[in-house]
Amino acid sequence: MEIIRPTLVVDKEVCLRNIERMASKAKEHKLLLRPHFKTHQSARIGDWFRQYDVESITVSSVRMAEYFAGHGWDDITIAFSLNVPELENINRLAASVKLNVVVENREAAGILAKKAVEKMGVFIKIDTGYHRTGILCSQTGLIDVVLNEITKNRKLTFKGFLSHSGHTYQSQSTHEIFNLHFDALMKMKTLRNQYQNEYPQLMISLGDTPSASICSNFNGVDELRPGNFVFYDLMQHHLGVCKIDDIAVRMVCPVVAKHTSRNEIVIYGGAIHFSKEFILNTDGKALYGRIVLRKNGKKILLDTKNYLARLSQEHGILKVMQNLFREIEVGDLVEILPVHSCLTANLMGQMLSTDGELIEMMPKY
Amino acid sequence: MEIIRPTLVVDKEVCLRNIERMASKAKEHKLLLRPHFKTHQSARIGDWFRQYDVESITVSSVRMAEYFAGHGWDDITIAFSLNVPELENINRLAASVKLNVVVENREAAGILAKKAVEKMGVFIKIDTGYHRTGILCSQTGLIDVVLNEITKNRKLTFKGFLSHSGHTYQSQSTHEIFNLHFDALMKMKTLRNQYQNEYPQLMISLGDTPSASICSNFNGVDELRPGNFVFYDLMQHHLGVCKIDDIAVRMVCPVVAKHTSRNEIVIYGGAIHFSKEFILNTDGKALYGRIVLRKNGKKILLDTKNYLARLSQEHGILKVMQNLFREIEVGDLVEILPVHSCLTANLMGQMLSTDGELIEMMPKY
Repeated sequence: MEIIRPTLVVDKEVCLRNIERMASKAKEHKLLLRPHFKTHQSARIGDWFRQYDVESITVSSVRMAEYFAGHGWDDITIAFSLNVPELENINRLAASVKLNVVVENREAAGILAKKAVEKMGVFIKIDTGYHRTGILCSQTGLIDVVLNEITKNRKLTFKGFLSHSGHTYQSQSTHEIFNLHFDALMKMKTLRNQYQNEYPQLMISLGDTPSASICSNFNGVDELRPGNFVFYDLMQHHLGVCKIDDIAVRMVCPVVAKHTSRNEIVIYGGAIHFSKEFILNTDGKALYGRIVLRKNGKKILLDTKNYLARLSQEHGILKVMQNLFREIEVGDLVEILPVHSCLTANLMGQMLSTDGELIEMMPKY
Repeated sequence: MEIIRPTLVVDKEVCLRNIERMASKAKEHKLLLRPHFKTHQSARIGDWFRQYDVESITVSSVRMAEYFAGHGWDDITIAFSLNVPELENINRLAASVKLNVVVENREAAGILAKKAVEKMGVFIKIDTGYHRTGILCSQTGLIDVVLNEITKNRKLTFKGFLSHSGHTYQSQSTHEIFNLHFDALMKMKTLRNQYQNEYPQLMISLGDTPSASICSNFNGVDELRPGNFVFYDLMQHHLGVCKIDDIAVRMVCPVVAKHTSRNEIVIYGGAIHFSKEFILNTDGKALYGRIVLRKNGKKILLDTKNYLARLSQEHGILKVMQNLFREIEVGDLVEILPVHSCLTANLMGQMLSTDGELIEMMPKY
């Protein structure tokens, strides 16, 4: 397929290597790998996981659960706190697949207990320090209240405690990721010790890509739910979590203009393609992507002084140093590594594989 | 339609009022209104413009031009600098509709002149100070070079000069918007004077919503291409360009959790729904949306100390002051005014009209 407009290209080889590495690691640590499929949102890429014995998945919405259930996945956790208005859809789905939902308050647990008519697993969402949402592990009173609601309905099985240490994404060093992960382990272990007698089958489920990628202590953990690792991106690289060569996706964008006086190159590729997520480059400037040039068949990653510096709806502005400026011409295609592959893939809605396959994703509606 | 997940609701009445106001203003100033349809990307909303005698439109991509051409629009300007790899599609489109393209350099103009096989209008893109892209009005040497290329192909007609004063979006006051607009007027008028003898039919086309909304001097201008005004949003309100009641869209999102200790309410509605665009609230904090509550059928807009304060992929975090905190419960739907309606609509991919109609948008592929 000829590329004529902004296109998300996925390097299948790199992607498979990322999956294999995580699957091996999970096996080595006797963990169930339940990858989060919200990063790719694609049945085709989901299939790539099967050769590594992945049978259980995580999704972030009821619609995404429906989509993957329709593509043969029958063990699904919706790792987003129960959205009560969707209970009818959840019941319908639970009738056909092994479904787990997540609760974190009396209100939702109570409504779930009243309205669940199909067998479902229920995880309690724990906040290990990210403070986005979930119950603090010290709030055992609230945990007991939620458990009390869950046990009112025999269709519901308490599965265990689930957390997402999303604060690892704000780490300043890999050392900090190790610390946050260790802290989360301790908290989850305390809960396990406290509830294991009453619920001997309970599981501990952890979620983030940074700690799943670089940590090696998973003491007391049963399940890992990383998502981003399938593609990785500049944010993960910035955190020290992956190598540049582990990044499996790139945006390919046509060049539409050059402005010599300010060393800027305008590409067709903006906020509706990349998302407005950024990191800071070495000069403290917002960086929305890094530039890869191909020269005589060789890939050259430009340093962070050459970068995608601004985005409007469809336009992207590359800052490019003088010596490289003349290497890029109007009509050329440039390759950009995205800052956050999940948001970029979500915006693009389809991908092109390096082996030429057009990869469809979950339709928006 | 019952709302069970994040939904973009468009108030048809407000939307029609916004269109009517802009159409009247254009008539009053004897300007051709060629609204930018990238904000709504919807054939149905496009239809709403027809009752106000709008017959010419602006789009931001070849695909969008194809989409609206397929829905009966036959006078279309693609207001994005020519993307050379799409010339085959552009030729195909120009065979069936009146099409204008935009160029701003010798390279693209030269390739266009070589490859255009259908009649097309060509605008030259002028940079009036936004410095995103375009030719400075002082660079008449470059303008002549581009004109020289255009005139090599008899299928191409030079239509005039087009600019988008996007720097009005960064204004600190409406006064600054007036100044920037006046500056743009002067620059475009200079060009008109310089090229009018040779091209007596040339048009001056301006584009941004802020100046189209609040300025009243359009001396020497022939055409206006605002887009955002159809919906407006918090950014435009922040700039002083519209009233809160002019904002025609809102996100409706279910509440999934409440965290009393930090006055935070978690909604189902994140970066994949709102986009990561923000403005600053009165405390200098990033604000991703403002909250509207309904009480006894009355709409109450909360002040900016109650706001959508953080976004991750699907989660939104509302900061809500103590006295209002208890008004919102798990399972409720809250309404949020978005910061940037264009990006939000682009992410949502469909809308629900206040009269119950499901409004489809251009499919991603």
